Amino acid sequence: MQYQAVRAALHVASVFAIYLSLAMLIPAAVDLYYGNRDWQVFAFSALFTGGLGLAVAMATQGRPPAFSTRFGFLVVNLLWLTTCAVGAVPLYASSSLDISLADAFFESVSGITTTGGSVLTGLDGMAPGILMWRALLNWMGGLGVIAFGVFILPLLNIGGVSYFRIESSSTDDRPFARFSTYTYAMIAIYAGLTSLCAFLYAAAGMGGFNALTHAMSTLATGGFANHDNSFGYYADNPLVLWIGTVFMAIGGLPFTILILFLARGRLDALGDPQIRVFLTYLAAFSLAVAIYHRLSDDVPFFEALTHATFNLTSIITTTGFASQDYGSWGPFAVTCAFVATFLGGCSGSTTGGIKAYRLLVLFELLYNGLRRLIYPNTVLSVRYGDRVVDDATQRAVVLFVAAFFVLWLMLSILVSATGVDIISSITGVLSSLTNVGPGLGPVIGPVGSYAPLPDAAKWLLALAMLLGRLEILAVLVIFTPVFWRR
Amino acid sequence: MQYQAVRAALHVASVFAIYLSLAMLIPAAVDLYYGNRDWQVFAFSALFTGGLGLAVAMATQGRPPAFSTRFGFLVVNLLWLTTCAVGAVPLYASSSLDISLADAFFESVSGITTTGGSVLTGLDGMAPGILMWRALLNWMGGLGVIAFGVFILPLLNIGGVSYFRIESSSTDDRPFARFSTYTYAMIAIYAGLTSLCAFLYAAAGMGGFNALTHAMSTLATGGFANHDNSFGYYADNPLVLWIGTVFMAIGGLPFTILILFLARGRLDALGDPQIRVFLTYLAAFSLAVAIYHRLSDDVPFFEALTHATFNLTSIITTTGFASQDYGSWGPFAVTCAFVATFLGGCSGSTTGGIKAYRLLVLFELLYNGLRRLIYPNTVLSVRYGDRVVDDATQRAVVLFVAAFFVLWLMLSILVSATGVDIISSITGVLSSLTNVGPGLGPVIGPVGSYAPLPDAAKWLLALAMLLGRLEILAVLVIFTPVFWRR
Repeated sequence: MQYQAVRAALHVASVFAIYLSLAMLIPAAVDLYYGNRDWQVFAFSALFTGGLGLAVAMATQGRPPAFSTRFGFLVVNLLWLTTCAVGAVPLYASSSLDISLADAFFESVSGITTTGGSVLTGLDGMAPGILMWRALLNWMGGLGVIAFGVFILPLLNIGGVSYFRIESSSTDDRPFARFSTYTYAMIAIYAGLTSLCAFLYAAAGMGGFNALTHAMSTLATGGFANHDNSFGYYADNPLVLWIGTVFMAIGGLPFTILILFLARGRLDALGDPQIRVFLTYLAAFSLAVAIYHRLSDDVPFFEALTHATFNLTSIITTTGFASQDYGSWGPFAVTCAFVATFLGGCSGSTTGGIKAYRLLVLFELLYNGLRRLIYPNTVLSVRYGDRVVDDATQRAVVLFVAAFFVLWLMLSILVSATGVDIISSITGVLSSLTNVGPGLGPVIGPVGSYAPLPDAAKWLLALAMLLGRLEILAVLVIFTPVFWRR
Repeated sequence: MQYQAVRAALHVASVFAIYLSLAMLIPAAVDLYYGNRDWQVFAFSALFTGGLGLAVAMATQGRPPAFSTRFGFLVVNLLWLTTCAVGAVPLYASSSLDISLADAFFESVSGITTTGGSVLTGLDGMAPGILMWRALLNWMGGLGVIAFGVFILPLLNIGGVSYFRIESSSTDDRPFARFSTYTYAMIAIYAGLTSLCAFLYAAAGMGGFNALTHAMSTLATGGFANHDNSFGYYADNPLVLWIGTVFMAIGGLPFTILILFLARGRLDALGDPQIRVFLTYLAAFSLAVAIYHRLSDDVPFFEALTHATFNLTSIITTTGFASQDYGSWGPFAVTCAFVATFLGGCSGSTTGGIKAYRLLVLFELLYNGLRRLIYPNTVLSVRYGDRVVDDATQRAVVLFVAAFFVLWLMLSILVSATGVDIISSITGVLSSLTNVGPGLGPVIGPVGSYAPLPDAAKWLLALAMLLGRLEILAVLVIFTPVFWRR
């Protein structure tokens, strides 16, 4: 790694920080509109980060280096880290919140990575600017991760996503020849779906401000809500819950394919095998838990179905909203919630976790391996729909899953060393690594909060969220000696 | 799969059952010696299983089929299942125990698979014949699994072990040219080490009977003890605990290499990388927990070290003895115990779990993958010591680990569906799948018992133990359609 590359990466990140400082004007405007004095915090934060960004940008000016994957990894990591730091500034500066640096950083990382675990309480009476900023962190983070999946991951050879290129369906059909056209389509559709969701939330009875901010964190599968009991506030409004369910599920679909479908009317694009797998386990988990909840808690079936589907969809799409304390629905529901935390949605979506296409490839590898025990000399290919998954992609899938489990267990040990009980440690790390949000148990469960955890645990969980958000390998690679070799 | 093969496999299993019925004469003799009327139960059980075995053996006589891997898998599964069933007969028949069929089968499977989780209570006053039978199940199970690892696994192409052949060190050095010589050496060394352990236990103050039976379950890394509080009975005798620690660790070494070392004085054989890895994490976990226990519970360091080393060695070697309730040592110790449950010892040992060589290969794969992100075109080999791990072995490692995690999560859901709480479900299935024994939490923790679980959960956990014991893939393959195709 050369000095020039580090300089150039810092330059990119600081320019990005300037743009982010402009985003702070939105919550400032919201606070001004509602007559809240907190607008000064956002205005000050915007000036501070904008100024700092400008200073660093000028200090690091120079010729850009030739593109290399190493430079790409450096930029990606630095961009996310910068965004997390910038996101924390107004939260830390706000005197109405009065939280520690660890809390502010945790909340910002949780927002940007669309995880949704929160250390804040008293959300119901919180200044609208703060709530808007949290929703914006979720929303920008969601857009960022879609861009990351569509543009960056293929460039960095982390496989998986590169396999499902934009031009996936056939080689001579390139609906978006130009990068910028595609980017505009992406932003337009993301914003359009958010607006639609907000409109429907409002129509179902949510107030205008809540409708907009909740729609932002729904589409981003982020999970920040404006109420201490999350969507429990709307527990008696099944319409709101079903709208949420549908748009969380949409957030779990691959954006590349959503664009092909919405912008070009390509219905066939929806035949992507990962969509089928994702919707299948979404339905299976929801239905199983609904039936269990109906039987063991003696709840009317429609109510059980509504809440089971909402909460399981929330977990599987790694959103993190909760409409009820499913931690008290009995062992089967709790274990389903635990296992569902691993799954995730489709690649190129805003979801985290292992994700449907990896699960598909993994099961195919497993079944092939078993068949090869009987017929050792058969040549068996791993198939994804009607294509063959190449060796590099298979390797990337296996690497990710292995790294995922290793990190999960190692970080759990570290978190427990800060004094956190085992169920909070293992489910907290898991939920952070998959960007779901809530864990299990009395502390960080669906109706709990990350606030009581020690600061050291919060830093570790923030690290886990970042690792998960950047598909683990893109962060780990920074820590290899070979990365820093000249 | 042909009719002839099923018939022949049944024949092998029934002949084996006859041998097992003879083993029941040992607890019968013990009971007779101690003047316990239970000898009749064992004599009756021996007659019953011997007679049934003889009848089935005669009914299934015929020409043996040509060897195929399919036949091998069938025989292996049937042998273990038969042994589990036979092992349960005297436990179910005993009127002094008076337990359900599920309990008897669970206890037998737990013994044969050297898991060590128990549903029996009142062990301190139990008839010596039953205690001897439990120790024998552990001991025979341990011998069985060594034989499985050394002879069967390589034959079945489940990789891993096949890679570390007996002739591992150099091709023209075959110390055991003949199969039978090797088998005798194996049994002699296993029995010799057991006797030495028993002698030392007795010298350290354990009664003769307890010394022998505990030595049997120590070497087998089985975990059945003769006291309700396991080795807590010897909590104040550090000598006993350290002897146990050393012999559990020996049980975690690869037997193939132990034989080379003990029978041929091949000191160099101990340089096997998996031994280094195994002993390293054994020491690291023990020391970390010892320091934590010393600091958080204010225990003298030597006492903390003794108990931490004993219990962590017990978990990592998948034995399952407990000298104290480490579940109450605080979050870090508990999470370490949880993570340690995955690890296991060396291949070709009596331990279960993921095992050191798989972890080594996995980390090497991971590190290579990260390096390849920077230099996509480098050719990197996975190394095990000074050799290259071939593709088939790499694949087998990945398959095992993937199947392990998938089964763990799926079986956890099923166990929780029987009404078992989440911590008991996930740690119970984990501990069964890795053949460790105790789980975590108030029910099945180190000072708990599997007795309170519902019958359905016991059957599922017994399945998990069998899956783990036969390296998962050897059982799963039976459930593929291709296995049963003619």
